[in-house]
Amino acid sequence: MNSSPVTAGLFANWLDDVKAAFLEFIGTTTFLLLAFGGIQAASPEIETSSGAGTSNVIHNMYIALSMGFSLLIAVWIFYRASGGVFNPNISLALFLVGIIGPLRFVLYCIAQLVGGIVAAALVLALTPGTLQSVTFLAPGVNPAQGVFIEMFITAALVLAVLMMAAEKHAVTPFAPVGIGLTLFACQLWAVYYTGAAMNVARAFGPAVVTGFPHGTHWVYWVGDGLGSLLGAALYIILKQNRYWLLTPGQ
Amino acid sequence: MNSSPVTAGLFANWLDDVKAAFLEFIGTTTFLLLAFGGIQAASPEIETSSGAGTSNVIHNMYIALSMGFSLLIAVWIFYRASGGVFNPNISLALFLVGIIGPLRFVLYCIAQLVGGIVAAALVLALTPGTLQSVTFLAPGVNPAQGVFIEMFITAALVLAVLMMAAEKHAVTPFAPVGIGLTLFACQLWAVYYTGAAMNVARAFGPAVVTGFPHGTHWVYWVGDGLGSLLGAALYIILKQNRYWLLTPGQ
Amino acid sequence: MNSSPVTAGLFANWLDDVKAAFLEFIGTTTFLLLAFGGIQAASPEIETSSGAGTSNVIHNMYIALSMGFSLLIAVWIFYRASGGVFNPNISLALFLVGIIGPLRFVLYCIAQLVGGIVAAALVLALTPGTLQSVTFLAPGVNPAQGVFIEMFITAALVLAVLMMAAEKHAVTPFAPVGIGLTLFACQLWAVYYTGAAMNVARAFGPAVVTGFPHGTHWVYWVGDGLGSLLGAALYIILKQNRYWLLTPGQ
Amino acid sequence: MNSSPVTAGLFANWLDDVKAAFLEFIGTTTFLLLAFGGIQAASPEIETSSGAGTSNVIHNMYIALSMGFSLLIAVWIFYRASGGVFNPNISLALFLVGIIGPLRFVLYCIAQLVGGIVAAALVLALTPGTLQSVTFLAPGVNPAQGVFIEMFITAALVLAVLMMAAEKHAVTPFAPVGIGLTLFACQLWAVYYTGAAMNVARAFGPAVVTGFPHGTHWVYWVGDGLGSLLGAALYIILKQNRYWLLTPGQ
Repeated sequence: MNSSPVTAGLFANWLDDVKAAFLEFIGTTTFLLLAFGGIQAASPEIETSSGAGTSNVIHNMYIALSMGFSLLIAVWIFYRASGGVFNPNISLALFLVGIIGPLRFVLYCIAQLVGGIVAAALVLALTPGTLQSVTFLAPGVNPAQGVFIEMFITAALVLAVLMMAAEKHAVTPFAPVGIGLTLFACQLWAVYYTGAAMNVARAFGPAVVTGFPHGTHWVYWVGDGLGSLLGAALYIILKQNRYWLLTPGQ
Repeated sequence: MNSSPVTAGLFANWLDDVKAAFLEFIGTTTFLLLAFGGIQAASPEIETSSGAGTSNVIHNMYIALSMGFSLLIAVWIFYRASGGVFNPNISLALFLVGIIGPLRFVLYCIAQLVGGIVAAALVLALTPGTLQSVTFLAPGVNPAQGVFIEMFITAALVLAVLMMAAEKHAVTPFAPVGIGLTLFACQLWAVYYTGAAMNVARAFGPAVVTGFPHGTHWVYWVGDGLGSLLGAALYIILKQNRYWLLTPGQ
Repeated sequence: MNSSPVTAGLFANWLDDVKAAFLEFIGTTTFLLLAFGGIQAASPEIETSSGAGTSNVIHNMYIALSMGFSLLIAVWIFYRASGGVFNPNISLALFLVGIIGPLRFVLYCIAQLVGGIVAAALVLALTPGTLQSVTFLAPGVNPAQGVFIEMFITAALVLAVLMMAAEKHAVTPFAPVGIGLTLFACQLWAVYYTGAAMNVARAFGPAVVTGFPHGTHWVYWVGDGLGSLLGAALYIILKQNRYWLLTPGQ
Repeated sequence: MNSSPVTAGLFANWLDDVKAAFLEFIGTTTFLLLAFGGIQAASPEIETSSGAGTSNVIHNMYIALSMGFSLLIAVWIFYRASGGVFNPNISLALFLVGIIGPLRFVLYCIAQLVGGIVAAALVLALTPGTLQSVTFLAPGVNPAQGVFIEMFITAALVLAVLMMAAEKHAVTPFAPVGIGLTLFACQLWAVYYTGAAMNVARAFGPAVVTGFPHGTHWVYWVGDGLGSLLGAALYIILKQNRYWLLTPGQ
């Protein structure tokens, strides 16, 4: 009994935290393996084999579908186990609003970042051609624009997780569907402009595997981090306005 | 106690109405920020960078997905707070059938119109190129056709909100899904012909930001307003026929 | 009391049957107005305005989305009122398995066929160009193939309605989603080959408005009628095998 | 009473097993008839009739939609009857984790393989042109890559079935939606690289009908079989970590 009470509190459930983080690693790898695989299948190299060019619009729609529905089903599978977070920026928001503790926060981030690297490496090994899932800014998008786009879409995803999954109501068990479709809707906007990472693990994994080919990788750490803060702030505003009293019967 | 009883009735919950309208502003901005962003990403300017042209059909499918799923998830997030209306034409129908009072109706319309302007301004600031989300009539569509197309699709959306969300039954908590998919289905028809606003706030915001470049902007006020009336009228017909008794056990 | 007991039985609820048929008319018109509008928006004439051709595959995907999701939301809206049938071939199957009586069957078929005509006429009036929603057999598809394709997909739709909506279980209130997605999946197969009517009202309406331009219109009466029989027969096989006992706990 | 207790146990419910296998045959045929029909409708031969080429990306998106949503609705229809397995690799996993017995496992595999053949033969008979649904490895994909891609996506599908449908919780009745969308997400990755069989019955049927035109058909037996093992192993890991205790309140 030489541990202080604070330490006892932080590490009281350390085994559960480790187990949950291990499942987060498997879940994040599942999500990003399918998603990065879909991005690979949308690549221009595949295009040329048919003799017809694909428009960027089709390319982006395919990636949005792949990202959104890979997340949807991966969260559905792991929702009642680790929570199906798969994203350090959501982990941060959950920590900030007090839903997870500091140990689980740190372990989840590590598991998620490693999952992103493993998924990228697997797709590189299993498919021909160069890895297509590295995020970068489109021509004409400056880093400030990139930061704010990433901030807004990450905040939308964070707010979706908090309002759909963390808040308890009749539709809470169906949150994986809403979370996946939120990623889908955000991708439809931003996959062209920034790659729509909304998740540093999603940006970091392919960047590690390809040796950080773009100098703007920091955008995903700053922008997505600001998105965690904005999303958590909006959630706190909703809670402090006691949102559930404003439209009775809804 | 110098207020008249009528005033007391109308303004009895004024603070809740103001709070709800503030959340409507945030929600409408979220919805239209993602949706206008998606429309921007479907623009012909993006197309040309790949050397292959996109057909109008792909362009319209992309926009319908972006509009429909942005609404779906934004309503899901804000449904139990402000109701997730995001649309003065739905606000009008809710007021006409007695679900919201006059003060909330006025405040919601203001919040929604301002949300549309803010969303359009943000997309203009965050993405290169001119704003793509202004609505206008396609070549060959005359203003009368535009008014009636907008009337019919707005009425479908209004009726969906009233039957899915306002009426209480087992699936009511899932109304955000049905409402978003109603927007999606209506967009698939009309995004080519009229832009499928179905919502004066969605038409007004980009028009303000771009300086009202089209002389047919009035179509969205008249057509969508008529749609509010038609949708509310169909709902009243359903209620007066006591629709829930006609197919027992359903 | 000069009516025979049989007549009394058949017409006992005649007013409810008339009211329900009236709502079926409104619902069928809503469904097919959106769906035919979407088909119009996928037409080759729209294509040419962008200078790039659309592939048949995109064209068919767009139509399948429009048909499937228009049905999904229209059934959702009218499900607890008229049942949201919108299809004489489903009406026939419901009559054959004893869910609706003969008077409601006849009234529903009339309402649905008239709804199809009204929807086609509205789309013709509201959009430029010729009506695109007439069904016909693709080159290389002979009438026997057309009959059997329509039979199989109509049977799938009928079976979906019977198992998802007529059978009562936890997911019954969500049947509109499953029914709409069944139409979507069947359209993805057959919209190219036969137009994927799966519903004589959907084939009849545009044929009336355009003056029956194709000699193979009978295919939709024979094939879809056989589909009603096959779907009802599969349902009876499932019921007679007491299907709910075969996989306990599911 | 000359049968041993073990035999009595294995064949105690033999009639239910036979009936369930018969329904599996009908269900698998329904699923793959719609899915193979959709693949046929995405074929390059259809493309050429419009004068515009389709990109591989569109082709693959169309197939993924058709496969995913055909499974979704077929499972929804047959879920409470036979379980809606439709896949020998899922049958194997259900047998390995003890959910179905050996007799039902064998009968289901037979029913599923025969269903795949019947579906492929029907599509060949009903549509012009050669059968398009044979799976093969894309250029540049070696058999080892093919085996591992099939292993990973089959494992994801197996894990989805076990966690969404076999585990009992609030969303279990909605498992058909999650299972269909899992197939969809996996198809988006692998339909280009391996055909994304994820199911030996899906690979076997078209191969039988077309006379095994590719020497790599074994990939689908080995890879998908390994996927059954990996999926079952992940499920056992989740269960042994008592996953439902790790994130209380989820």
